[in-house]
Amino acid sequence: MSNTANSVVLVHGGFVDGSGWDGVYQILKKDGYDVTIVQNPTTSLADDVAFTKRAIAEAKSDVILVGHSYGGIVISGVADRLTDRIKRLVYVNAFVPLDGQCLNDMVPPHFVGLFDAVAAANKGAVMLPFEIWRDAFINDADLELAKSAFAKLNLHPYKTFTDKITLKHALAELPVGKSYVNCRQDIALPHSMPWHPRLSERLGLFRLVECDGSHEMFFSNPARLAQAIAEAGRD
Amino acid sequence: MSNTANSVVLVHGGFVDGSGWDGVYQILKKDGYDVTIVQNPTTSLADDVAFTKRAIAEAKSDVILVGHSYGGIVISGVADRLTDRIKRLVYVNAFVPLDGQCLNDMVPPHFVGLFDAVAAANKGAVMLPFEIWRDAFINDADLELAKSAFAKLNLHPYKTFTDKITLKHALAELPVGKSYVNCRQDIALPHSMPWHPRLSERLGLFRLVECDGSHEMFFSNPARLAQAIAEAGRD
Amino acid sequence: MSNTANSVVLVHGGFVDGSGWDGVYQILKKDGYDVTIVQNPTTSLADDVAFTKRAIAEAKSDVILVGHSYGGIVISGVADRLTDRIKRLVYVNAFVPLDGQCLNDMVPPHFVGLFDAVAAANKGAVMLPFEIWRDAFINDADLELAKSAFAKLNLHPYKTFTDKITLKHALAELPVGKSYVNCRQDIALPHSMPWHPRLSERLGLFRLVECDGSHEMFFSNPARLAQAIAEAGRD
Repeated sequence: MSNTANSVVLVHGGFVDGSGWDGVYQILKKDGYDVTIVQNPTTSLADDVAFTKRAIAEAKSDVILVGHSYGGIVISGVADRLTDRIKRLVYVNAFVPLDGQCLNDMVPPHFVGLFDAVAAANKGAVMLPFEIWRDAFINDADLELAKSAFAKLNLHPYKTFTDKITLKHALAELPVGKSYVNCRQDIALPHSMPWHPRLSERLGLFRLVECDGSHEMFFSNPARLAQAIAEAGRD
Repeated sequence: MSNTANSVVLVHGGFVDGSGWDGVYQILKKDGYDVTIVQNPTTSLADDVAFTKRAIAEAKSDVILVGHSYGGIVISGVADRLTDRIKRLVYVNAFVPLDGQCLNDMVPPHFVGLFDAVAAANKGAVMLPFEIWRDAFINDADLELAKSAFAKLNLHPYKTFTDKITLKHALAELPVGKSYVNCRQDIALPHSMPWHPRLSERLGLFRLVECDGSHEMFFSNPARLAQAIAEAGRD
Repeated sequence: MSNTANSVVLVHGGFVDGSGWDGVYQILKKDGYDVTIVQNPTTSLADDVAFTKRAIAEAKSDVILVGHSYGGIVISGVADRLTDRIKRLVYVNAFVPLDGQCLNDMVPPHFVGLFDAVAAANKGAVMLPFEIWRDAFINDADLELAKSAFAKLNLHPYKTFTDKITLKHALAELPVGKSYVNCRQDIALPHSMPWHPRLSERLGLFRLVECDGSHEMFFSNPARLAQAIAEAGRD
């Protein structure tokens, strides 16, 4: 194919593993993309950055690098170190860090308090209670889908939320395209500290793509999310 | 039916009476819900709370309690006193009060001024001029529908807008689910004092459901609003 | 026809000339409107106001006067001088000026800096670099459409962006209807200085109509934009 950025590399967020992307993967694959799901080790932020970097090296062409939620910190770290194989960064309601920030620096204090308490009770791993996740993270699904999706989630090593990213360059200055996909009913972050434009504007010049859906659209509406990612990633 | 919250109780806002819900009622009924339209007396806020409370007592199962606009204050008062029959509160671009607040405390000063003037000229009852209502309340309708819907409105006793609600508990602490339906082109309140997130965030953990439409969607698009209410009210 | 405002007059923004409206024109024409595309001289803001004013005088009935972007300043100036032939003003992600303001007063400082530099290098005419225009102005198009649309743009005399409008009346006080069409993925202006509600609220009572799309929807989705303009312009 002549498309210069036909390879899509999908980086998952917290709690969910790479299999969360399965629905999106199938659709992008069918549409002719070379798609890779990265299964990060989640042992530390540095480990995740290194692992994702290797996945890009194996792609067949220049890469559209997609990160969701926590995965936005990972792809930011990768892009800071390796721009020559990356065509465009696509943040899907993902964290966009400044140099020296960790995930906990970008969420409201009550989330940090919740994570601290859960991690203390779970040997340093975090999870979300179903009640919160159902209404604030997958508000667009019915109960059956919410339950089956929740059953796929895992305890996530809390260290990855407190590890700080080192960025040599401001993301806005990196010589790659940047897009932000805003799922409009995503209330995983409160409206007073939203994904967009609070975090998206850190990208400098970026392409905005929006769709209706929650933070977990790869579960609740993978077809619509795949379309949004394609529109965000194209030249 | 096994649905634990199959009863929907619909509480109207100001100016419109219960018949405003007719379109939504028909659709929810067809979809298998046990639906009750409450026709509040509007003689005082306390009377409306008491009347709605009795309607819930008569429902066949646990209740999804839906309030529109002023009706949000009514359902808040009901839920504060009676949580055991309520499964979930659904606010449809509705006021979410703090303890001791009245409707006038949550609208911009120019509305209070307008209401004061209209009430003085109408023996203590308020109404909106058609010109304002057509562009700011039912902006998604054509003129014919706007006129026929406006013809159904009534003078509303102003006392209900100045009566203050007493809440023993913060709404966020009530042991019932909470959802907020945001009709996105609703400019009945100015964008500097919006329905969402200004009022919705008072619910604490809540499920956000959005749809395109004005403040009077039960007139202009009852099918879409009924769908949003169903998504907001489900378990 | 009995429609009292069956004439639509379309006023273009900066960089694009009147032909940008061609797609919208065809659809409104087919829907029975008497449509005029104004091709302003762009020699100065006063010239554009005078030229548009003459176009209105030639319309067959009262006019729905539509302005896009910079064109919002033009239609504001026209309406201030000539309300008897104008039924309603429709701003399509357009500038809504205060008395004495120019376009540069309503955009972020980095745009003014960019315009200054480009004008200095182009004998007083401005243009946008393709890279910025593609991601921030026509983010909803594919690359092919973005390129072909960009090829239709022209250097725009910078003087029109620094000429200040004189308004004898606050726009909110003018005895004509006002509507604002907000294309929701328009990030031509940053979210910290948005089109809506920052500029729309200057209209006082106005009708909000929204649709999904970028700043250049007349290129990327003229059918949807024509529908939005019709809903914004109707009685």
